[in-house]
Amino acid sequence: MQDSRKYTTIHYHQYLGIDELLALQNTRSAAVGKPAHDEMLFIIMHQVYELWFKQILHELDSVCTMFREQRVNVDNMNMVLLRLKRISEIIELMVKQIYVMETLTPLDFLDFRDYLFPASGFQSMQFRMIESTLGLREEDRLTYHGKSYKIVFSDEQQARLNEIEENGSLFELVEQWLERTPFLQFKEFDFLTAYKEAVDRMIRKEQSSIRDTPFLTEKMKAMRLKMLGDSNSYFKHVLSEEEHEKMIESGEARLSYQATIAALLINLYREKPILNIPFNLLMELANIDELLTTWRYRHAQMVMRMIGNKIGTGGSSGHDYLAKTAEKHKIFKDLHNISSLLIPRSELPDLPEDLNQSLGFYYTTH
Amino acid sequence: MQDSRKYTTIHYHQYLGIDELLALQNTRSAAVGKPAHDEMLFIIMHQVYELWFKQILHELDSVCTMFREQRVNVDNMNMVLLRLKRISEIIELMVKQIYVMETLTPLDFLDFRDYLFPASGFQSMQFRMIESTLGLREEDRLTYHGKSYKIVFSDEQQARLNEIEENGSLFELVEQWLERTPFLQFKEFDFLTAYKEAVDRMIRKEQSSIRDTPFLTEKMKAMRLKMLGDSNSYFKHVLSEEEHEKMIESGEARLSYQATIAALLINLYREKPILNIPFNLLMELANIDELLTTWRYRHAQMVMRMIGNKIGTGGSSGHDYLAKTAEKHKIFKDLHNISSLLIPRSELPDLPEDLNQSLGFYYTTH
Amino acid sequence: MQDSRKYTTIHYHQYLGIDELLALQNTRSAAVGKPAHDEMLFIIMHQVYELWFKQILHELDSVCTMFREQRVNVDNMNMVLLRLKRISEIIELMVKQIYVMETLTPLDFLDFRDYLFPASGFQSMQFRMIESTLGLREEDRLTYHGKSYKIVFSDEQQARLNEIEENGSLFELVEQWLERTPFLQFKEFDFLTAYKEAVDRMIRKEQSSIRDTPFLTEKMKAMRLKMLGDSNSYFKHVLSEEEHEKMIESGEARLSYQATIAALLINLYREKPILNIPFNLLMELANIDELLTTWRYRHAQMVMRMIGNKIGTGGSSGHDYLAKTAEKHKIFKDLHNISSLLIPRSELPDLPEDLNQSLGFYYTTH
Amino acid sequence: MQDSRKYTTIHYHQYLGIDELLALQNTRSAAVGKPAHDEMLFIIMHQVYELWFKQILHELDSVCTMFREQRVNVDNMNMVLLRLKRISEIIELMVKQIYVMETLTPLDFLDFRDYLFPASGFQSMQFRMIESTLGLREEDRLTYHGKSYKIVFSDEQQARLNEIEENGSLFELVEQWLERTPFLQFKEFDFLTAYKEAVDRMIRKEQSSIRDTPFLTEKMKAMRLKMLGDSNSYFKHVLSEEEHEKMIESGEARLSYQATIAALLINLYREKPILNIPFNLLMELANIDELLTTWRYRHAQMVMRMIGNKIGTGGSSGHDYLAKTAEKHKIFKDLHNISSLLIPRSELPDLPEDLNQSLGFYYTTH
Repeated sequence: MQDSRKYTTIHYHQYLGIDELLALQNTRSAAVGKPAHDEMLFIIMHQVYELWFKQILHELDSVCTMFREQRVNVDNMNMVLLRLKRISEIIELMVKQIYVMETLTPLDFLDFRDYLFPASGFQSMQFRMIESTLGLREEDRLTYHGKSYKIVFSDEQQARLNEIEENGSLFELVEQWLERTPFLQFKEFDFLTAYKEAVDRMIRKEQSSIRDTPFLTEKMKAMRLKMLGDSNSYFKHVLSEEEHEKMIESGEARLSYQATIAALLINLYREKPILNIPFNLLMELANIDELLTTWRYRHAQMVMRMIGNKIGTGGSSGHDYLAKTAEKHKIFKDLHNISSLLIPRSELPDLPEDLNQSLGFYYTTH
Repeated sequence: MQDSRKYTTIHYHQYLGIDELLALQNTRSAAVGKPAHDEMLFIIMHQVYELWFKQILHELDSVCTMFREQRVNVDNMNMVLLRLKRISEIIELMVKQIYVMETLTPLDFLDFRDYLFPASGFQSMQFRMIESTLGLREEDRLTYHGKSYKIVFSDEQQARLNEIEENGSLFELVEQWLERTPFLQFKEFDFLTAYKEAVDRMIRKEQSSIRDTPFLTEKMKAMRLKMLGDSNSYFKHVLSEEEHEKMIESGEARLSYQATIAALLINLYREKPILNIPFNLLMELANIDELLTTWRYRHAQMVMRMIGNKIGTGGSSGHDYLAKTAEKHKIFKDLHNISSLLIPRSELPDLPEDLNQSLGFYYTTH
Repeated sequence: MQDSRKYTTIHYHQYLGIDELLALQNTRSAAVGKPAHDEMLFIIMHQVYELWFKQILHELDSVCTMFREQRVNVDNMNMVLLRLKRISEIIELMVKQIYVMETLTPLDFLDFRDYLFPASGFQSMQFRMIESTLGLREEDRLTYHGKSYKIVFSDEQQARLNEIEENGSLFELVEQWLERTPFLQFKEFDFLTAYKEAVDRMIRKEQSSIRDTPFLTEKMKAMRLKMLGDSNSYFKHVLSEEEHEKMIESGEARLSYQATIAALLINLYREKPILNIPFNLLMELANIDELLTTWRYRHAQMVMRMIGNKIGTGGSSGHDYLAKTAEKHKIFKDLHNISSLLIPRSELPDLPEDLNQSLGFYYTTH
Repeated sequence: MQDSRKYTTIHYHQYLGIDELLALQNTRSAAVGKPAHDEMLFIIMHQVYELWFKQILHELDSVCTMFREQRVNVDNMNMVLLRLKRISEIIELMVKQIYVMETLTPLDFLDFRDYLFPASGFQSMQFRMIESTLGLREEDRLTYHGKSYKIVFSDEQQARLNEIEENGSLFELVEQWLERTPFLQFKEFDFLTAYKEAVDRMIRKEQSSIRDTPFLTEKMKAMRLKMLGDSNSYFKHVLSEEEHEKMIESGEARLSYQATIAALLINLYREKPILNIPFNLLMELANIDELLTTWRYRHAQMVMRMIGNKIGTGGSSGHDYLAKTAEKHKIFKDLHNISSLLIPRSELPDLPEDLNQSLGFYYTTH
């Protein structure tokens, strides 16, 4: 029955709701009888952003749903990856859109700026939903004149934001998925022990290499040894579960100890077929985080250019707020920090042959 | 009275019509009970394009209005330029958006492609309006299965397209503006005569230079002289009013003889203050044309990737149609072709001192 | 011994050969005593392209080497993918670089254009090597005034190009790798038979659906049935080995029958873990092809803008040549054409359970 | 004589020094017998950056030379503008290049990172020259472990940097050019007085408008009045020469009082033909500044991703240093801050008719 609608013919304009869409650009300047040419751009730019926000949320929600299944269906992992890549492409486009925004000059903005009070980008519900769905918690956020960012939203909207925060964000879902990684302990093989030994071996080798280099001055040797020593203690530091817990308490780290170790394993043995997609996926999450940071930063620059030292339409110092959130609202910092735990491939502990096989595919046996 | 509305406070969501905007993504796949995840992207991409189209039309209309004034107000010329630049930035962004479109894979498109029949991008009214406002005439367009491109539109829409075509496009307004350029004949100085002499002088100099070069073989000399000869006859060709009219009749040229000469003058003496903005403006028109061509071409590539040899949802071979329009729908070709008339600065005829002054500013005299 | 060099300190300028690098911009215009400011840009743009070409060749060579191993090491597949992605990023950047090239105006180019004769981009050895390494054969290329593209190169260079052509290009290596795909015949299951049955089933279902739709006019029904019929015969056409061989002979197809079927399987069952990376890899190859096409096309546009109807410095009509190669020099067209063979996921034949398992990972069993 | 060289034929490879260029990628990893595939990318990326730096310096030097002429030749102003735009396009490309750099993963970097010690991007002489030529002074720079940024350079290089700093940077040249703007005092008309009156008028109008709005709560009125009051005092603040001098002393401002007022006039009356190019030029300077800031910021992000918390190859905490310079090394902040002095067009003081004419062109009188 319903399927017969499949063949109802449809026109482009009707399908996309073009008439309704093009009726939504109601400039305030025209409403007060002083039409300002550039307010159209201001409205359309924001509407385009909101459409992309909806798309990003659509992808994020589907990705979270796939992660939420009892055990992530392996048949979904590449789809998760491709959807995350799509989000990256969209944010890249959003960054590029700032060049269009910057064709609005400060003087032209003045022609309608007063009519917008106190509307402000802070009030974009969807952008807050994106941040929360990714994993930004209320306590991670910059406060808004000392109050919660939620105060600009309606009760209903606040309820929805609370629900997202309670539901488990992508950060938490990825953390749980990492914690389930099965190869950290494989029969006799304990990844962490093998890795620690490799680190020790590597550092001892480097120390003697430095000491034995004839043409290095004593001062240079001391400097290099000091650098090495620091990294040694750093490795010891972060690889201790106890120390890691302290870092979580102090806010220096967020990802659980178990998940961190798993992310490290995936990074180090990423060439193993079974870890290919997980590695690409962790890279893509870090990429999304970085692109969002770039967008916030570029946004801050644009606001600076537009209004200089003046306060934003929302009554806050727009530039400062945005510039601060650029770094502060980063979500997957722990994934970036994995870099400091890596050791060169040449120093990697060899894997036992049966583990090696388990990380590959068996199709040659058929 | 009216002005008091200025201080009505307004919320971001209400100002931008967010609720209405986000209610316009109605997937056909969900309507037939077979929701396809990626149809959302398909809808949003097209809606974003339509919003940008509206913005481009908004700029184009304002630019045409400024050109239509009895005599273009010189106080508007830089504004015209900046609005054209904005259009360029938007089209650059539209080109970049194709990377987002390409995250929709052919297999995912199949999940909802059948439900779209026969909706098609050919039916975008606004894009046709952009082309017509820029100056694309019905006779310049690729026919659509042997029929006018207008047949997919309603009577009302067709009337609007006719109106635009009759109203005078940006191409025609720029042509008339060029024809009004006052410096082609300045007292004793006739630009065209001086330019023709310079061309002759230049070619004679080059011919003897080639003949006198000791290390060139006779064959190379002949080849270089032949190349030179060709350009000689070409200059003579295009600088004859009679020949130019023939080129217009045959469709090789479109811009009037008078306007072409003016555009040449502006290109050659572009450093003169009075010609700075006119030169930048001609460059920007050529730039818009080229960017639109790029967009059509990339769009064609994307369609090829999506549906291979199959026909598009609109019942046409999408890729071929789009690929052909890429070049064919170019509007300001004549501006690109000015390049072949240029001569090096070192060969430019000197301007009489009083003309030179007229092309500058007088402010030092105050 | 050798390793002690590891600790030789090195300075940025020395490491990168900055002094030598910055000594290579010798403008011809200065050499003849008529320095032209913009020739510097001309030289640097081309040198940057050549550096990127070297990087692309570096990646392509490593990818070919990995494919050439007796049996591609599965531990290398994601590395192959990431290196192909790097090539894509580089070509995207090269496309963007054209915006920089376009700041060189035609009049400024005239200041030094004559001194370049007959140097030309056609003479870039590395670009030809990239095309050949990817798989462009001599017979696929546009001829150059009726002669081989190789005539502009030295004997030594020609020998190197011949060697690349004989050595087996990436196209051929990918073809062989596809032909080795093990799952086309899996015990009782024959992919091609199952797929053909699915196509038939799908088309029959659609036909009766069209006939039974009450609100379609007879004319519309006939039109839709005709479209469907066409695709039916098309499927039959391409899935016959005999027909495929004919297409290869006529030049419509290049990829072998066996490899085409494997690429189809990979596209259809791309969610299966074992096919994730192969699918992403085929997409990336198509992507590189498309980006190179875009680069050639944009390059052609830029040349058009620069010299209009005049012939290029290399003595050929630059724009036409480049515009034609854009499409003609595409290498992985067959991968794009796979799109027309796809059927919706809902119509896919179910895989036998043991095949399904073989396409996944076994790690849960340990 | 010399001119005969014009017709010496030249080959692409010879013209561009391809052989020499492609011989400059000497990987350290290969030199120590442990070739790392990705070091090639590392070298080429940096060499490309250095080539672009050379091009930027080439443009900046020519722009400075044009500004240095006794009285800037008005025939050069659009050329200055177009060369600044070229610099912007190049920096945009440099920003995009970071996407290519990010294909180098942290683990791959480890394969050769140790061999680079202590080479570092801090040692790029050309980048320092760009900053200094634009106008970054030694005292504006972040110190390098408490020492001058120059310590990493040779004596000869330091001398060259000193010379640039003493020679007068683009900042200073633009400042002097602004100070020469002739229209600030035009017969009876004093721009500053007229502007101050307009500001007062505007603020009084707004105050009474707020007080008379019936539906605003007292609290909202107070808030709006307070915002207004702040901007009032701000205007008074910056428009006093005495206060401006204090801001310069404290480092809050750098541009001289006279130049600031001129920049304000140009911004407000930018539609006047004589101010078109000056306005576009000020915008482009601000744009270059912003793009460089973006490049530094993205660079910092990339370093963070690559090495996490570890210190850079140059022995400094790369990410922190770069992130801090992003904002600190901004040069034309004063141009951005002009935005806060602007008043809406509708409030602009009318210009006397003769001044109005002087700001236009006289060509209609001939």
